[in-house]
Amino acid sequence: MKALQYRNIGQAPEVVEIDTPEPGPGQVRLKVTAAGVCHSDEYIMSLPESEYVYGLPLTLGHEGAGIVDKIGEGVKYIEEGQSMAVYGPWGCGLCYECSSGRENYCRNAGTYGITPPGLGAPGSMAEYMIVDSARHLVPLGDLDPVRNVSLTDAGLTPYHGIKGSLEKLHSGATAVVIGVGGLGHVAIQILRALTSATVVALDIDEAKLNLASDVGAQYTFPSEAGAATMVSDLTNGLGVDAVFDFVANQATLDLGQGMVRHQGDHVLLGAGAGNLKMGLVSGAAWDVSVRSPYWGSRSELFEVLDLARSGNIRVHTEVFSLDDAPSAYEKLKNNQLLGRAVIVP
Amino acid sequence: MKALQYRNIGQAPEVVEIDTPEPGPGQVRLKVTAAGVCHSDEYIMSLPESEYVYGLPLTLGHEGAGIVDKIGEGVKYIEEGQSMAVYGPWGCGLCYECSSGRENYCRNAGTYGITPPGLGAPGSMAEYMIVDSARHLVPLGDLDPVRNVSLTDAGLTPYHGIKGSLEKLHSGATAVVIGVGGLGHVAIQILRALTSATVVALDIDEAKLNLASDVGAQYTFPSEAGAATMVSDLTNGLGVDAVFDFVANQATLDLGQGMVRHQGDHVLLGAGAGNLKMGLVSGAAWDVSVRSPYWGSRSELFEVLDLARSGNIRVHTEVFSLDDAPSAYEKLKNNQLLGRAVIVP
Amino acid sequence: MKALQYRNIGQAPEVVEIDTPEPGPGQVRLKVTAAGVCHSDEYIMSLPESEYVYGLPLTLGHEGAGIVDKIGEGVKYIEEGQSMAVYGPWGCGLCYECSSGRENYCRNAGTYGITPPGLGAPGSMAEYMIVDSARHLVPLGDLDPVRNVSLTDAGLTPYHGIKGSLEKLHSGATAVVIGVGGLGHVAIQILRALTSATVVALDIDEAKLNLASDVGAQYTFPSEAGAATMVSDLTNGLGVDAVFDFVANQATLDLGQGMVRHQGDHVLLGAGAGNLKMGLVSGAAWDVSVRSPYWGSRSELFEVLDLARSGNIRVHTEVFSLDDAPSAYEKLKNNQLLGRAVIVP
Amino acid sequence: MKALQYRNIGQAPEVVEIDTPEPGPGQVRLKVTAAGVCHSDEYIMSLPESEYVYGLPLTLGHEGAGIVDKIGEGVKYIEEGQSMAVYGPWGCGLCYECSSGRENYCRNAGTYGITPPGLGAPGSMAEYMIVDSARHLVPLGDLDPVRNVSLTDAGLTPYHGIKGSLEKLHSGATAVVIGVGGLGHVAIQILRALTSATVVALDIDEAKLNLASDVGAQYTFPSEAGAATMVSDLTNGLGVDAVFDFVANQATLDLGQGMVRHQGDHVLLGAGAGNLKMGLVSGAAWDVSVRSPYWGSRSELFEVLDLARSGNIRVHTEVFSLDDAPSAYEKLKNNQLLGRAVIVP
Repeated sequence: MKALQYRNIGQAPEVVEIDTPEPGPGQVRLKVTAAGVCHSDEYIMSLPESEYVYGLPLTLGHEGAGIVDKIGEGVKYIEEGQSMAVYGPWGCGLCYECSSGRENYCRNAGTYGITPPGLGAPGSMAEYMIVDSARHLVPLGDLDPVRNVSLTDAGLTPYHGIKGSLEKLHSGATAVVIGVGGLGHVAIQILRALTSATVVALDIDEAKLNLASDVGAQYTFPSEAGAATMVSDLTNGLGVDAVFDFVANQATLDLGQGMVRHQGDHVLLGAGAGNLKMGLVSGAAWDVSVRSPYWGSRSELFEVLDLARSGNIRVHTEVFSLDDAPSAYEKLKNNQLLGRAVIVP
Repeated sequence: MKALQYRNIGQAPEVVEIDTPEPGPGQVRLKVTAAGVCHSDEYIMSLPESEYVYGLPLTLGHEGAGIVDKIGEGVKYIEEGQSMAVYGPWGCGLCYECSSGRENYCRNAGTYGITPPGLGAPGSMAEYMIVDSARHLVPLGDLDPVRNVSLTDAGLTPYHGIKGSLEKLHSGATAVVIGVGGLGHVAIQILRALTSATVVALDIDEAKLNLASDVGAQYTFPSEAGAATMVSDLTNGLGVDAVFDFVANQATLDLGQGMVRHQGDHVLLGAGAGNLKMGLVSGAAWDVSVRSPYWGSRSELFEVLDLARSGNIRVHTEVFSLDDAPSAYEKLKNNQLLGRAVIVP
Repeated sequence: MKALQYRNIGQAPEVVEIDTPEPGPGQVRLKVTAAGVCHSDEYIMSLPESEYVYGLPLTLGHEGAGIVDKIGEGVKYIEEGQSMAVYGPWGCGLCYECSSGRENYCRNAGTYGITPPGLGAPGSMAEYMIVDSARHLVPLGDLDPVRNVSLTDAGLTPYHGIKGSLEKLHSGATAVVIGVGGLGHVAIQILRALTSATVVALDIDEAKLNLASDVGAQYTFPSEAGAATMVSDLTNGLGVDAVFDFVANQATLDLGQGMVRHQGDHVLLGAGAGNLKMGLVSGAAWDVSVRSPYWGSRSELFEVLDLARSGNIRVHTEVFSLDDAPSAYEKLKNNQLLGRAVIVP
Repeated sequence: MKALQYRNIGQAPEVVEIDTPEPGPGQVRLKVTAAGVCHSDEYIMSLPESEYVYGLPLTLGHEGAGIVDKIGEGVKYIEEGQSMAVYGPWGCGLCYECSSGRENYCRNAGTYGITPPGLGAPGSMAEYMIVDSARHLVPLGDLDPVRNVSLTDAGLTPYHGIKGSLEKLHSGATAVVIGVGGLGHVAIQILRALTSATVVALDIDEAKLNLASDVGAQYTFPSEAGAATMVSDLTNGLGVDAVFDFVANQATLDLGQGMVRHQGDHVLLGAGAGNLKMGLVSGAAWDVSVRSPYWGSRSELFEVLDLARSGNIRVHTEVFSLDDAPSAYEKLKNNQLLGRAVIVP
């Protein structure tokens, strides 16, 4: 079968021919219907050899959907022909965290060397993929796999981040989304569907601010120093109740910290990092919770798909064939994508 | 191997010789180290044929612990020789509820005919038992299986009920436990460990009230009409914040409803039922939540075992051999047990 | 000044001339801008003398709004001329419940004889009203008092009920509203604004079902025995996650109990009552929380008004002058009102 | 009357004679029974004139208790002779936050210039003090004011911080307290009373570690670099579920961040600040919530006093007369106090 693989450190991924895999006991083989392209693929392919830990060659694709094609021994309650989304942050399934479906925080993944598909295990950018357990499949039903595959990460990650802040997003609250990319434009829609908060979007790119308005942001501002004042004015100087930062570099961290009010949430979801001054006498607002959640839980993926089912989320997608997949990554690298790229094998 | 089976409607269970089972793919065989005797076994054996839905012959035992003895194909991250507790309320593992470990509320168990061990599937009262998936095992580690096997139901059920009420059991609150049997005497200990609430126990049996005091209840009263007044006095007439009713007949339901204050919890955990007048103008306290939770979730079983590990729960047990198991059920029926009976094969 | 008073048991309320009241220390006088007509007024006026405890004569009106007109000694941070909504469930302000703004569950109201305006204290159906403390005022700002006065009860009561169920109303959930009257038609809008749940409305009156659709219910059904099946079909037989019953008679209680799924919420908000069979073996769904919340908290009134401010709630109102107020009650009694009647002095 | 006042920047506080104040409308005068000495007094007296914003002369004391001595006009439901604790973080009483008793996060305190007693308003270190509203009093009942006055801050502040982390402190969890001073030694007791978590205390002072053990810490370690390893070993390398840092300098912030596990809480409660590297790729554990809560809410003060009432908290106190108050501050400055100093006028 064809697969898109990252084969050499620092080089672009290539389409290659490899053997079609067979499902072992407990496993399920999918005929892939769609695979999402993500900034974190780009991120790991930018790492120097000394920091790259995902194995080579690596079949890319941690966002995946497919039709159940072949079922390994001992798999129950799943049938061939079902359309499925793949839950990506695989865990051991047995530890305390996994026992409540938070496999994204599995306690044993490191010890046992368990990795997500496309980030260690062979991913979805191939004609077929092996899913290590039926519990990592969530039924898509009538949902179009191409338009919804990205929800497995670009939907699930913001959903998980927002869910942890729901209590603070009561009526009258204000939420800010920084960075209206693949995840950010879905975050806006989730915020609108799950809360009655006012949603403000910040980005440096005008096309992305337009996308933000299209998908429901009530206010959009260029992500510059002046944004803090504009957002402050919107809240009569009180500050906002939550900031969801899909960039998370030093500039956006500072911007976010300056906007959030006492008891607010400052949620870092981009693949960046920076320094924040913290503590009671730091000048930052009191009792702001700063956190960096990772991906999402199994039940949250059900909920995200239900949101799409009820018409509350539409991912802005650009479709590529498997053969054209390398060009999708090139466009991503050059910031020429709006929303999310999807590979259809 | 030997097993205790319920073989004929209305007759006592018998020890019989049956084939030792083999684990299929995904399954695990345990060499049973302990099996708990529960009122619900008694309850189902009291049902007439028309209402009995658990199959015959039925190997009893929905509380189980054992040593991993043989591992089916495709089972990972489990090793032979490990000491395990069995999570009993088996579900499909795939639905929305199971995806967060609430297999006790599995949406497919009915459709797929999935039943707990000892309540449909072959149970733990045998030398060996088959557990249908490794995810239904929680490591016991150094915990003594005989003293702790009962926690899989007699601990997990009250834990689940109490966990849903934790927010209301703030400092200064009062909790009432009605019925100090196998579950009730553990409930008292859980309440003491997880909250700073004052714990009051009610029972009709003086020996059980003594047990209640021994395990930490600060007040004990005979479970009679007068109890309402005594409890009311303790709270200066305000009423209590939560009632956990392990009897749940009409008399205790009325008693509980009369005790609980505005915004309190009225949790029905016994295998009974009754009628309650409900509604804003019913005379009952406002915003009391009345509910009947069932068993518990996978992660809660981890937490219960951790409570035992830290010395916060000690189950009062009476031990029987497998051959003597029928006499344990007879004692249970005649209300001659204090705490919980455990069968050691 | 003019006031609408209930003066004789069993007789209709009358417009009378009484002295304009003066605010004492800590009190605030409002020039009333709007007063809402509520079923519970009707309910108390239907009570026989033996059960009537609200005093005579009683100036009606527990939904009120007005302009701050005169400020008593010691009142701070309030200015004459401000447009205010009145928080109705007055409490002592000092007890544990009041200390977190849940004055609707004040522990001392009974002991101290504290009553809401219009339900003991003189109400809002007059040219002026005394509010016993500035803390019972919430700024309306630019909100039209006539269109929004009803939110102080017809908005706050369903909001409080729904807020307690928010966690269960995740994506993919279904909520049922029984009774699309003054409170029910606001409940539908709150559910749509605060959740992504599917909202189903039941009523016996076709005009009210049309109103339900207008304000956002995705499905409407006649509130008959067959409704259970139709709702069940919508959820593939699973049942709904929450029922909000604004009627709460025996028929609707039974209907609701038959619809709600395991772990759901069954919230009784109408001025009725009935019997429910409860308990693990009652046949009712497990872990359903049945409760009867009363009115709402102070901070929740802020949130409800914020919802109106963001355009998420529009109360369907019919306006009457103070002189015509008796006819509003007559229409209410004869079920000839759609939405909520508002008196404008 | 006598009062302890801070009169000149940089100089020690002095006992002076001033007029006994009269309560205005809505106010209450207490005859002070006890006043607590706090590090934050020390902190503000160390500020240079350019940063000092609390007014001069300043009667110290933001922890206070007293007997209701004289009641202003319009005050209801309070009687002369009642023993009361003073809720210190005064707010406007009217805004959204105050409407739910979170006056510590009042939205108007800055605008209206509202300050706590002893931190702007005249404090409790005097024979009499004025409390600006009856809602800032919580009944002590039979609790000894001298032994419990410190709970109004040294109890309330850790209680508020811990309450926000309760959900994470499930059975099997581990909590670390850094700094066993006035607040820290109460935090240990609150953790033991409200949770079943294992409590670990760190301090640089051996006497304080002994105090930690006395009040319930299961493990104590010197607060050095090696502490991270010792704590890690306790949790089998997983890290702890919550860190409560009562020092909050750069060294303890780093120590805490290195200990806390995925999804844990890192709560900064000391009067310090520092820089933390945050973000998904920062190397810090995922989804750790870092926050700096301030003081506590009104209802939490009720709960803290209830904890003391049930015997769960004992403040380690050293008592001084008002005349000796300056020496208490000197001992505090020189780190010669164990637990909390209390002034008895």
